[in-house]
Amino acid sequence: MNDAITAAWRRAAGHQRRFDARFATYLDALTDPASSSLEIPRHGTFPARALQLVRELSLRGGKRLRVTLLHEAAALVTDGSVPGLDEAAISIELLQTHGLIHDDIIDDAPTRRGGPSTYYAYRQDFPDRPGTALALAVLAGDLAAFLAGRVLLTGALPPDRALAMAAVQADAAAATVAGQLLDLERDFHPAPDIELLHEVTEYKSTRYSILAPLRLGLLAAGADLAPHDAELRRYATALGIANQIHDDWLDLFGDPESLGKPVGSDIRSGRRSYVVRALLAVCDTGERKLLDAALGAPDCEADTLDRIRDIARAHGIDRQLRADAERYARQAAARTATWRERWRPDAVAFFEHMPAWSVTRER
Amino acid sequence: MNDAITAAWRRAAGHQRRFDARFATYLDALTDPASSSLEIPRHGTFPARALQLVRELSLRGGKRLRVTLLHEAAALVTDGSVPGLDEAAISIELLQTHGLIHDDIIDDAPTRRGGPSTYYAYRQDFPDRPGTALALAVLAGDLAAFLAGRVLLTGALPPDRALAMAAVQADAAAATVAGQLLDLERDFHPAPDIELLHEVTEYKSTRYSILAPLRLGLLAAGADLAPHDAELRRYATALGIANQIHDDWLDLFGDPESLGKPVGSDIRSGRRSYVVRALLAVCDTGERKLLDAALGAPDCEADTLDRIRDIARAHGIDRQLRADAERYARQAAARTATWRERWRPDAVAFFEHMPAWSVTRER
Repeated sequence: MNDAITAAWRRAAGHQRRFDARFATYLDALTDPASSSLEIPRHGTFPARALQLVRELSLRGGKRLRVTLLHEAAALVTDGSVPGLDEAAISIELLQTHGLIHDDIIDDAPTRRGGPSTYYAYRQDFPDRPGTALALAVLAGDLAAFLAGRVLLTGALPPDRALAMAAVQADAAAATVAGQLLDLERDFHPAPDIELLHEVTEYKSTRYSILAPLRLGLLAAGADLAPHDAELRRYATALGIANQIHDDWLDLFGDPESLGKPVGSDIRSGRRSYVVRALLAVCDTGERKLLDAALGAPDCEADTLDRIRDIARAHGIDRQLRADAERYARQAAARTATWRERWRPDAVAFFEHMPAWSVTRER
Repeated sequence: MNDAITAAWRRAAGHQRRFDARFATYLDALTDPASSSLEIPRHGTFPARALQLVRELSLRGGKRLRVTLLHEAAALVTDGSVPGLDEAAISIELLQTHGLIHDDIIDDAPTRRGGPSTYYAYRQDFPDRPGTALALAVLAGDLAAFLAGRVLLTGALPPDRALAMAAVQADAAAATVAGQLLDLERDFHPAPDIELLHEVTEYKSTRYSILAPLRLGLLAAGADLAPHDAELRRYATALGIANQIHDDWLDLFGDPESLGKPVGSDIRSGRRSYVVRALLAVCDTGERKLLDAALGAPDCEADTLDRIRDIARAHGIDRQLRADAERYARQAAARTATWRERWRPDAVAFFEHMPAWSVTRER
């Protein structure tokens, strides 16, 4: 791994540890009636249970890549401490919690981040009342969404900066919903256009996972976004596509052991991923029959997946998608060439090398 | 009707007309790719359809009582034009749209505001895919929530004022979710405590429908909230309870013709309203059997409702709840006594007489 990335991951591990502790403190304070800035009803247990489930899912957070992007974006401008980054990180991760809770309702998914999804935690609470479990999960997701917006508004930042950051998050949140809507629509297409897939990636993932952390980090550090925003967007868009193509590639060609989960979930759920789209575009009638039977079949067998993997390899889809991901990664990296003129070199190096890392990771 | 109220309703009708036009313009601009400040994917129809359904439900808005409260609150301070009131009104009504969309999923409700609920509009779009309809309705509700937050952040207000207003709305939104959670819990109680009902009212309705409009109107007009906030809260709490008791009273004792809908919905849905709680507290064994059979029975007959109404009257519940509502209305009105010292008399008169109006209205 490149030195700049190694150094950045060392910093990232520090950010992650510090953030996880800070996030836990924030969530504990919220759920403690004595210290909470959030007013919680004195009666009943349902509001406290929702906060508890939001907390649990939020703290099973993994590597917090978005938090690293946020900190590295601030580090483009300064190596000093930057007020508002904690609030921005909490907002980003709570928005993610919101999205996961509602996604797991939409996908009827029992597990998430190595534990029960919020929906299924409620289904365990109320085994005989699936409607109540659904209602509570919808509301827990709503609560996470409003908390995500709120944390940026109640900090100690100068008002103009807090307002700009809150507006970035609100735009990212609305874009993400549009992306989730488009994501649902894509699976109605027999063979969606690549441009549609790129747009799903842009709206569903890139905006809140890459672009918003970049913008928030720079804003918190006192930068004026306007002169750089078009460039940041191009960087984020290319990195987002590279990242998504690689994710989709891993879902068929990855190593289940490294991934920590079974492969083939896109095929089993019928998701028109970059891999599935490429397969649909090239396969012959016999292959298509096999693929159609597997797409959206939750119980599709490993054997069938192996055959689909072989078909994909025979058509060169394996190599093609790696090449596509690498091309987009290079496009993203190339955008950082001009960043050195105005921003701090160690953080620029992180953003330069990040795309190559993102398309070679094994999970 | 009192002169101050008559004058205020005349102003309110003007606010409503102007607001409805302004709201339509705002929503049209959002949904027009050429002029929208909101980025919408170029591909697909699902994002545009969600915006369209948010628009339709938002514009079937009725009398916009929250918008009137907002304008009258600003009028406490000034009779001049107040920038930011339009954005606040749009935010308030979009938050309401969000709540209605998710409520109608939770209640599996086919109609809302004289048209299809968003969930059922999607069920008509996808008659064979109830899961897709549910997913789309969850997302449409999320979109309305994020738009509600966003509109206060992107206007032309001074940043400190915009930020304070956005924080008020975020707190109101989080409180409302807590109230909805507590509302679900209440119906698990065989006979809930009156304090629990008051707290449901406070969180589920008062905060966003009364207190937030008051705070937003004053903030927009440049007032400092801190010295008045405790008083505003006491006014809002008392008015909220008065209003809710009267609503619950109307649901059993009201005139279906004036109401524009059938009575008895609380009993049919098993909702532990103020009326139902009072009934459960006093009825004898035979009456209790009748009531238990009716509670939560969607097909409970008009005949049974008539008998329950007679039981309630025999126990004096009819009169008792009117008296309770009037008492809380008087408490609210009494709070305005000190307002005259610092605020404009015509708007103070509105807030003074509003509670009495709210517990005598027929719908």
